[in-house]
Amino acid sequence: MECVFGIDIGGTNIKIGKFYGDELAESRRIKTDKSDVGANILGDVARVVREMRGGDEIAGIGIGVPGPVVGGVVLGAQNLGWKEFNVEEELGKFFPGVVIRVLNDANAAAVGEWAYGSGAGFSSFILMTLGTGIGGGLIVDNELVEGASGSTGEIGHIRVGYHNDRLCTCGLYDCIEQYASATGVVITANRLRVGRETILNEIEVTAKNIFDHAKLGDEVCLEVVNHMVEKLASALAAITNTVNPEVIVLGGGVSKAGKFLLDRVEKRFRELAFFSVRNTKFALAEMGNAAGMYGCAYEARKKICKLKDSALN
Amino acid sequence: MECVFGIDIGGTNIKIGKFYGDELAESRRIKTDKSDVGANILGDVARVVREMRGGDEIAGIGIGVPGPVVGGVVLGAQNLGWKEFNVEEELGKFFPGVVIRVLNDANAAAVGEWAYGSGAGFSSFILMTLGTGIGGGLIVDNELVEGASGSTGEIGHIRVGYHNDRLCTCGLYDCIEQYASATGVVITANRLRVGRETILNEIEVTAKNIFDHAKLGDEVCLEVVNHMVEKLASALAAITNTVNPEVIVLGGGVSKAGKFLLDRVEKRFRELAFFSVRNTKFALAEMGNAAGMYGCAYEARKKICKLKDSALN
Repeated sequence: MECVFGIDIGGTNIKIGKFYGDELAESRRIKTDKSDVGANILGDVARVVREMRGGDEIAGIGIGVPGPVVGGVVLGAQNLGWKEFNVEEELGKFFPGVVIRVLNDANAAAVGEWAYGSGAGFSSFILMTLGTGIGGGLIVDNELVEGASGSTGEIGHIRVGYHNDRLCTCGLYDCIEQYASATGVVITANRLRVGRETILNEIEVTAKNIFDHAKLGDEVCLEVVNHMVEKLASALAAITNTVNPEVIVLGGGVSKAGKFLLDRVEKRFRELAFFSVRNTKFALAEMGNAAGMYGCAYEARKKICKLKDSALN
Repeated sequence: MECVFGIDIGGTNIKIGKFYGDELAESRRIKTDKSDVGANILGDVARVVREMRGGDEIAGIGIGVPGPVVGGVVLGAQNLGWKEFNVEEELGKFFPGVVIRVLNDANAAAVGEWAYGSGAGFSSFILMTLGTGIGGGLIVDNELVEGASGSTGEIGHIRVGYHNDRLCTCGLYDCIEQYASATGVVITANRLRVGRETILNEIEVTAKNIFDHAKLGDEVCLEVVNHMVEKLASALAAITNTVNPEVIVLGGGVSKAGKFLLDRVEKRFRELAFFSVRNTKFALAEMGNAAGMYGCAYEARKKICKLKDSALN
């Protein structure tokens, strides 16, 4: 049978899925070997793909990497130790004749969520993933927008402060990532809890604890959430004024705070957004960690179709 | 001969252009009659179009209006006195059988600038017009992006302050329009000049005077420009992180400050943008006030082609 692989390379794990059409047939997870500036990663991937292949023919491989991608080349993936690197060519050496589609990992997750999750049925859509950092992806007119330098959806680095208060991992100050990611809310909490009566002075300060105790009514935790929501809603308003999607989907670990978070973001967004985008829909992501694998497989199939189409014309 | 009209409806003037293909054959300008909640505007337009038509056949009319447009309906155009209004249908009553294409005016200008001006040759592009207010338009993959509620490119309302300092005409606070438009720099200048030695305490405080005297070395004027540039570069970085276009084009009256402004914006942008979008190109708009007319005619022709294509299939 013909199969397609969807592979999501993260800084900690690599998720590999084998698909028959839209259906995930099997998936595996391996550790990311970051030794030797990530030189073993593609070899590890190739070995597992060959094992999983069985007697099937591989029609295509979609692979998501944590960095900007232009034409199959990742411009740099700090988390893996990669500098500029032609992933399409290098992975292609293991699989001659197989169609390879290289994507940014957040873009891949956006495609997965749009094609199979909360974005299904919408023609334009933005995913914002609130994890350790913040990433995202944009669909316009049913197509992934990757951008001139593969950086569409780098929405974690929208500036939401003007006092050079929080240094971001990217080297800039006051990126939304420093306020609304899991890391960001912990920074806020560690500032706000000082000298206050709050459970945060008795337990570990994590995003999960902050949200759990905000739900239980801890005032400092609620303040932390409100602070995050203010910055996040502003960034989402900026995004929406720029590209005006039908729906905004929040994903990533922090979005597990669920409706408690979503309702607050949505309410403040409606207050902060330009009048004609106030009715933008909001939803929580549904695909979890599998979104990237699904999105990679989807885009690999799409590339196969396009190549067939252009061969016919 | 077959002709197409491009019509740009502004709050003060209406510009009407008659095109043979890409060529502007004739243009006229009439006053916008805002009396009676703008009820006479389309009638005035129709009268002039009929005069200009001569013996030619009208294949299509593209019309730009100052408000969000969805499917031929403007959701509201405050400057004209219009509430929600089906422009396609109403203008169509004057021209039965003629293809009508209704666009947001800033989007129309973006198309004009992209097709014939500084954006020519790029597949993705953003125009930001710095006038009394700030507007814009976005091209992705050679197509105008209009958005779910016709509001793509409402980039004048990106928030660039967090202290509810400047109330915007849209009802929100601290929109970039209040800092980087002609109006915005005057607000900044009127604050900064108090008790200072500056030419601004002797002459009229206008955007033109501010830039002219910044160029001559007036320190307060330079401070005003730097303040504007800081906010503008941040907003452009946010836009670029979201959609990653090949080129950013600055237009509108304030952009007449030319290279003096452009160089400063570009320099600060490169400091404030995410690493992988730092090489985004910058340019000044070239089409001036005619951009809208050209863009409307272009989009009308495009709609005619699409209708022909779908009739053939």
